[in-house]
Amino acid sequence: MGQELLRLLHERHFPADSIRLFASARSAGKTVELGDVRYTIEEAVAEAFDELDVALFSVSGGFSTEMAPEAVRRGCVVVDNSSAFRMDPKVPLVVPEINAHALEEHQGIVANPNCSTAIALMGLYPLHRTFNLRRFTAATYQAVSGSGVKGMQELENQVRAWSAGEPLKVSAYPHQIAFNVIPQVDVFYPDGYTKEEHKMANESRKIMGHGELAVSTTCVRVPVLRAHSVAINAEFWSPVDLEQAREAIRAFPGVDLIDEPEKQRYPMPFGIAGTDNCAVGRLRRDTAFENGLAFWVTGDQLLKGAALNAVQIAEGLHERGLIRIG
Amino acid sequence: MGQELLRLLHERHFPADSIRLFASARSAGKTVELGDVRYTIEEAVAEAFDELDVALFSVSGGFSTEMAPEAVRRGCVVVDNSSAFRMDPKVPLVVPEINAHALEEHQGIVANPNCSTAIALMGLYPLHRTFNLRRFTAATYQAVSGSGVKGMQELENQVRAWSAGEPLKVSAYPHQIAFNVIPQVDVFYPDGYTKEEHKMANESRKIMGHGELAVSTTCVRVPVLRAHSVAINAEFWSPVDLEQAREAIRAFPGVDLIDEPEKQRYPMPFGIAGTDNCAVGRLRRDTAFENGLAFWVTGDQLLKGAALNAVQIAEGLHERGLIRIG
Repeated sequence: MGQELLRLLHERHFPADSIRLFASARSAGKTVELGDVRYTIEEAVAEAFDELDVALFSVSGGFSTEMAPEAVRRGCVVVDNSSAFRMDPKVPLVVPEINAHALEEHQGIVANPNCSTAIALMGLYPLHRTFNLRRFTAATYQAVSGSGVKGMQELENQVRAWSAGEPLKVSAYPHQIAFNVIPQVDVFYPDGYTKEEHKMANESRKIMGHGELAVSTTCVRVPVLRAHSVAINAEFWSPVDLEQAREAIRAFPGVDLIDEPEKQRYPMPFGIAGTDNCAVGRLRRDTAFENGLAFWVTGDQLLKGAALNAVQIAEGLHERGLIRIG
Repeated sequence: MGQELLRLLHERHFPADSIRLFASARSAGKTVELGDVRYTIEEAVAEAFDELDVALFSVSGGFSTEMAPEAVRRGCVVVDNSSAFRMDPKVPLVVPEINAHALEEHQGIVANPNCSTAIALMGLYPLHRTFNLRRFTAATYQAVSGSGVKGMQELENQVRAWSAGEPLKVSAYPHQIAFNVIPQVDVFYPDGYTKEEHKMANESRKIMGHGELAVSTTCVRVPVLRAHSVAINAEFWSPVDLEQAREAIRAFPGVDLIDEPEKQRYPMPFGIAGTDNCAVGRLRRDTAFENGLAFWVTGDQLLKGAALNAVQIAEGLHERGLIRIG
């Protein structure tokens, strides 16, 4: 995610006087090159935030919990990718295409949503705005990039070992991921749902400002490198119209309608990885509900699911004059 | 599937005087060995059925449509794995644990269900019997074995090519399957659902004798070799009780409850491939419905999803004296 953040800040010409990279003491002093710019990684100490206007955190919840308030006290706005502050009522949780207005109320920290949630909502929200969402069920097909570099390496190493006829090593996940699917993402709660599944429900309600929304999801890790997909069944309060639904998706920024089944065109990880926009396909009237729509959303976990959304939040803060820059 | 059929007939000691293998003229004369028995494949011509009591068809729908009625005219009962006769009102469609009674009404042909449907119903039916199913939504994670040997070879070849840094060849599926998921199984219908998704709805209604059941599924091919998984959200007419639901699964033949999330134990393709029983896990109250249960079912596509169920049907016919054997 760090690499994607840096690339996006460059490519999108983020209006910063300077960009600085911070990490733990262990990585401090290492250099990172992008184009003809070389960055030297600095140690993330509290004093550093005195000199910063905005910081994009891509770290553990534990580090965020400790360091984000410290950064805020020192005058730095934090866009935090961990789950530590997402459900804090004082912290806006933002997908800019959906609720950029919530940025106005920030008190120093803005939370970046869970990756599966952000991707699912890029399909759900335009339909909610049109037909008034009552409930949805979803099953995810989550790439190993959601577990960072170690997840991607584990899948690649297992596949290489299999091809070489060697035993497969398991360390990043509780079970082998190559040639397998694992119906567990993050830890279990006593109600039988995982933390990831709770995030999808709670964060969907908060981002869409829809406290009454009923949600049930099953989050599943699949042997895919970096794009997440979600199969969604959604019931609405208003009667649905398929052409109107298509138009709602088409008109919404940040999402493409890729839906030509007769040409076998629909969103897939293979076509979406590396692209900014999410994509919706397989859009159809849902045969389980009178006012229902079934569809499929795919998005790059590292982009809209993480780094891109964080940079968009920083851009939104800047456009609204909510951070000093320069 | 042919190999699994032969193995199961041997291992389950199917009470046949002789077992004969038939295929197209192209394969006739080839031999197949199992233990110390050698079979010579014969050409499947109409006259052959004069000498047979029961035939297990694992062929295309086109061949079944032509040859199954011919076999019946010649006194042979046909257990057909194609979709050709499944929705024919004169043909029982049977999962023996659920509706073995329907065998009594056979008129020569008994249909073996779609693989995803049979596996999903091994979890759904015990719960339906207990709480009266109103509707369900499902998303599948279907192995490449569902496309036969060519599907399995395609995934293996693509993974080997990737490991060797060579280009990946695509032929069995419309898109690359290694490191990808494809939200299409079988052809599309005008309503936007695939034929596979229609099968899951129609066959579920027929097998459970539940014409009013509302169903919406999304069928997805994943890079897994031979076991299918299904994430299900089910709404019931009666209030649900989680302990009663667990007991209903435990008490049902042919399915195991593997549901110890605290030990990271749940059904997965990796543990289920090669086992006769399907398995249910991730069983929990569904937060999207008042009377709902969410769960996850995994089963070997080639066993309960195909060959095992076909052999169980033949056994059921024999036990009921509905075929002459010996």
